[in-house]
Amino acid sequence: MCHSVRFISLGPGDPDLITIKALRVLQQADIIFYPSTISKSGRAVSRALDILNQLEISAGKLYPFAVPMNKNRSLAIESYNNISANIEEKYKNGQETAVVAEGDAGFYSSIHYIYDYLAERKIPVEHIAGIPAFIACGALAGIHTVKQEEELIVIPGTATGEALSEYLQSGKTIIVMKVSQCQDTIKLIIRQQPRHTYHYFENAGVAGTEYYTSNQNDILNRSIPYFSLMIIKP
Amino acid sequence: MCHSVRFISLGPGDPDLITIKALRVLQQADIIFYPSTISKSGRAVSRALDILNQLEISAGKLYPFAVPMNKNRSLAIESYNNISANIEEKYKNGQETAVVAEGDAGFYSSIHYIYDYLAERKIPVEHIAGIPAFIACGALAGIHTVKQEEELIVIPGTATGEALSEYLQSGKTIIVMKVSQCQDTIKLIIRQQPRHTYHYFENAGVAGTEYYTSNQNDILNRSIPYFSLMIIKP
Repeated sequence: MCHSVRFISLGPGDPDLITIKALRVLQQADIIFYPSTISKSGRAVSRALDILNQLEISAGKLYPFAVPMNKNRSLAIESYNNISANIEEKYKNGQETAVVAEGDAGFYSSIHYIYDYLAERKIPVEHIAGIPAFIACGALAGIHTVKQEEELIVIPGTATGEALSEYLQSGKTIIVMKVSQCQDTIKLIIRQQPRHTYHYFENAGVAGTEYYTSNQNDILNRSIPYFSLMIIKP
Repeated sequence: MCHSVRFISLGPGDPDLITIKALRVLQQADIIFYPSTISKSGRAVSRALDILNQLEISAGKLYPFAVPMNKNRSLAIESYNNISANIEEKYKNGQETAVVAEGDAGFYSSIHYIYDYLAERKIPVEHIAGIPAFIACGALAGIHTVKQEEELIVIPGTATGEALSEYLQSGKTIIVMKVSQCQDTIKLIIRQQPRHTYHYFENAGVAGTEYYTSNQNDILNRSIPYFSLMIIKP
């Protein structure tokens, strides 16, 4: 394997939905950095680690990094810079270094800060593609997310009622990421425009906690967790 | 493996970008239907077959089906119905039957006709997710297709200049599929609005013919083939 820092996509959650290429690079790496967050109860939580463990990647080469959740942007960036400098050092020591992300590492992934930091400093970087959550959700529900001339719009948690209505009226399929952040808007749209089809997903690909429904009452009565996603068909 | 017709996503072209799950199901299947088209010179062309061959799937279980290219919609549907009836028969004979698609089988894939036909006739169907071409293109170019609050719009070959301008003005990232079908529009936009970044791709993931540039003159002078895709960043 030629020497660069690999940004490896783990896919949506099911360890079998990683690619052959990504698995091989994980197995060959000397050191793997994975994102971890601290829950309200103070426990370290990492879906990436869950996937790595299920893939039986040697625990000795796994190093967590805290995902900066700081609303203060300059503090968050400082935190990413520290992680990046650490990764740069491992790389320069000659270690085959990898950084992992859930889903695809270039699709709404926060590790792009690290990637950009290294690229700016002329460290060779490589991105290995993976399946984004919305693709896994479509497969789980057995729907054809888009076909023929249909257009698709992806909105990351910032959907307004006006925008959603406009997209639906013009026949677009909508992916809403981070539904929890705009759940009042979404629930209002469901009540106002029940003629559309609302496919709702939690933890797609995670055995045991995966949930899917297109029943509108079930969605309206649901408290919406962080890992949630919606596919709305006009 | 429980008995259903499997719709297997092959990913963007690089055989190593198939998932572990998809590869296992391909290896276990008794019969695999793959799409094939006839080129202008009369030769059968199938990127799906190229991938299956590189994955060393036994040739004896591979069966091509002609992708209906007929502009007459009812003839195309009749053709899909015939393929679907053939697949149904194999399934009912007790064979582990799979149908493959490039990219993801639920994302602008024509095999949804077959899937829907079988589902309507109460044949159990399963969709195994794969990496869509645009994700592989982003990885190849080393760009972060979308991040944070950015919105993404996917347009399949039907882009108008007005729509593209409006999306760019509102800060959306645009994926244009089948660039060849709207190349005059795209080239005009590049000339009129050179301040945006135009990432252009051909045959992403196909060794030997893969091509990427973000040089605007190169794109303007290029004759655009069928398997082309563009990521436009505002």
